[in-house]
Amino acid sequence: MIRFYNGKILTLADGFDIAEDEVWVDKDKISFVGEPTADILDSQRFEREIDLEGNLLMPSFKDAHTHSAMTFLRSYADDMPLQDWLTKQVFPMEAKLTGEHIYAFTKLAILEYLSSGITASFDMYFKLDDYVRANIDAGFRTVICSSTNDFGGSPEQDEEDFLKFNNTSPLISYKFGCHAEYTTKLETIKGIAKLCQKFKEPFYSHNSETEREVLECISRYNKTPTELFDDLGLYEYGGGGFHCVYLSENDMNIFKEKGLWAITNPGSNTKLASGVADISKMLDMGINIAIGTDGAASNNALDMFREMYLVTGLQKIKYMDASSCPANDVLYMATAGSAKAMGLDDCDVIEKGKQADLVVIDLNKPNMQPVHNITKNIVFSGSKQNVKLTMCAGKILYHNGVFYLDETEQDIYKRANEMLKDF
Amino acid sequence: MIRFYNGKILTLADGFDIAEDEVWVDKDKISFVGEPTADILDSQRFEREIDLEGNLLMPSFKDAHTHSAMTFLRSYADDMPLQDWLTKQVFPMEAKLTGEHIYAFTKLAILEYLSSGITASFDMYFKLDDYVRANIDAGFRTVICSSTNDFGGSPEQDEEDFLKFNNTSPLISYKFGCHAEYTTKLETIKGIAKLCQKFKEPFYSHNSETEREVLECISRYNKTPTELFDDLGLYEYGGGGFHCVYLSENDMNIFKEKGLWAITNPGSNTKLASGVADISKMLDMGINIAIGTDGAASNNALDMFREMYLVTGLQKIKYMDASSCPANDVLYMATAGSAKAMGLDDCDVIEKGKQADLVVIDLNKPNMQPVHNITKNIVFSGSKQNVKLTMCAGKILYHNGVFYLDETEQDIYKRANEMLKDF
Repeated sequence: MIRFYNGKILTLADGFDIAEDEVWVDKDKISFVGEPTADILDSQRFEREIDLEGNLLMPSFKDAHTHSAMTFLRSYADDMPLQDWLTKQVFPMEAKLTGEHIYAFTKLAILEYLSSGITASFDMYFKLDDYVRANIDAGFRTVICSSTNDFGGSPEQDEEDFLKFNNTSPLISYKFGCHAEYTTKLETIKGIAKLCQKFKEPFYSHNSETEREVLECISRYNKTPTELFDDLGLYEYGGGGFHCVYLSENDMNIFKEKGLWAITNPGSNTKLASGVADISKMLDMGINIAIGTDGAASNNALDMFREMYLVTGLQKIKYMDASSCPANDVLYMATAGSAKAMGLDDCDVIEKGKQADLVVIDLNKPNMQPVHNITKNIVFSGSKQNVKLTMCAGKILYHNGVFYLDETEQDIYKRANEMLKDF
Repeated sequence: MIRFYNGKILTLADGFDIAEDEVWVDKDKISFVGEPTADILDSQRFEREIDLEGNLLMPSFKDAHTHSAMTFLRSYADDMPLQDWLTKQVFPMEAKLTGEHIYAFTKLAILEYLSSGITASFDMYFKLDDYVRANIDAGFRTVICSSTNDFGGSPEQDEEDFLKFNNTSPLISYKFGCHAEYTTKLETIKGIAKLCQKFKEPFYSHNSETEREVLECISRYNKTPTELFDDLGLYEYGGGGFHCVYLSENDMNIFKEKGLWAITNPGSNTKLASGVADISKMLDMGINIAIGTDGAASNNALDMFREMYLVTGLQKIKYMDASSCPANDVLYMATAGSAKAMGLDDCDVIEKGKQADLVVIDLNKPNMQPVHNITKNIVFSGSKQNVKLTMCAGKILYHNGVFYLDETEQDIYKRANEMLKDF
């Protein structure tokens, strides 16, 4: 059992109050939250006691949309228009990816997640056996979203993957989805709808990332992507959309009614000049919102602190209103919100019996001082520098700048750089 | 003499090429840049040799607009409209500030600058003796900009301060300015114009931060702030404007013609919902551009990595063009550009004889890997986490997470938090 003591605890289980409690972790779960009596404390045997030194323990961040292995394209092509970027730079490079590449570049992404306090990814990519191996080897949690589209994947393969990866490891789960409407034939999408209904499962996809995507969908089907998916019955058991920059009023009503998750990616939408999602409106409507980084090729960082600042900042600019999209709402989106969006209902908050997916925020850094308001400090001023410890499923994977994985970070960097020669 | 070896050097003296050279520092200056012969190397005696371990040495960042002591209001009031924020929260709190407060909260800001690789601030605030003492005690470089306005300061005081603070320490310099047109009587502004002409000095002020500021100035004078200042002869010897969100076409022509510096503050302009400056247009016009964080009350972080990402990202969104405002231009603004904007012409690049104001960027972090393009990695993916060493005037003030100041960071935090009780 691991004991965290002498710190501040933000459970997020019931608002944003911070208590000076203890948290104990037994194997992969939280076993105690509160102020232990001397008796209870004496009766425990801890394998490790971590003095928080006044720092903050809180639920870890979850990255609700990413393509981990795309670290191989970080700063490979930037400052270019979206279409050129995709067709001239990204697609030809991706065609050369082997399973070993996927393994190596996913490992690199996991290092970055951990250094940003992220303990789970909602990932959409390919060569899933190698991808899964990288996560299990690292001890990192991931939810795979099927990326089925006209260039790869099929409902049959998805069903096989669903049954296989949901029974591989407690760290791995699998959700149905397709890459996007614009990359996937209607017949294939209908096949996925049958799967969602057969297994009573939610559906996820890229959705309304660009205006062009929505306009083309309307010209094909006389419906927005959200309307199309909804009419096909894909959202009968919930799900969500990645990006959601160009949702219509009716789309938002569907999101609200079906309890879908709008998973926003402001870093990527900014850098690729896709636009600004209407988060404030969705917040007002009570739509579920989660946050993802998208892949490192488009962002270029897997940094939840940057994303949180952009989520709130871009709404303030969009509405020319400094009170738009308050900080605490954003902190919730990046932690409990993202966990729920990914189906990780046992990883959302700090509570007895929940998974021990935790982060320690270093308050003893100049950007967290003075201490007027800790949660606002995190959203408006926080950075990767403030991540002191990252724990996934009860295991400390990052602490005081040191990674505890199955291989060293230097080995991961070296292999990733050597592999660049293959492209 | 300090020797930096076994690393990569970005001098910024001539483009963005990176060389595997050495840099030597003698007292406060750079004494050698290049590949030393064995003979030259043997003849030197180094007090310290720093193995860069493949990391990047480059010119430090300079923060070209800030109010350092405003760290005392970080996360004190957020998510509120600008006018409420200023009149109900900021002004009443500022009225209570003593010299000891200014000293303490400036020290806290300096810690944050150093942890973000910033070695100089262009600061506008008050109680200058205490402010200057904090910088000298810390070994930090600052350029004071007069904040004269109707509530404090005068041309007479400015002349006295100019003569005094430009002869206090090599770390301290002083520039003429006023807070802004909307806070300063015309008579006072005219008095400052006389000073600029008498001493052949540039002029700086907040300029066109909000639309309301510009509209009110036009209604008073039938001129924009830039036109007013220009007509009064304030720009005869150059200078610049802080924020520059609402410059007109004619304002930009004046900036171009007079070689003025547009000092952009995207973090503050975003969080206060002021707007997005037209950096891409100014870049195209060849206007000088520098970057500042503004104070911690409005931003809320003193983080040049965040600012750089916002400078380029917000232009991409503004123009809906991912190729707008390229990364290398932004890196130049934050380093050499900001130095020049502040009159620190000997702190801009790495070259023999220049001041040793340097930063070591840690490339051995996941967000800097793999190494396709180092300068793009810094702008699009960098964070405070990547600052390995910060040197100001030849002195190492921050290295591997440890500060080397006249007092410990814990003492600075403790005092700052205790002082909050005074407000």
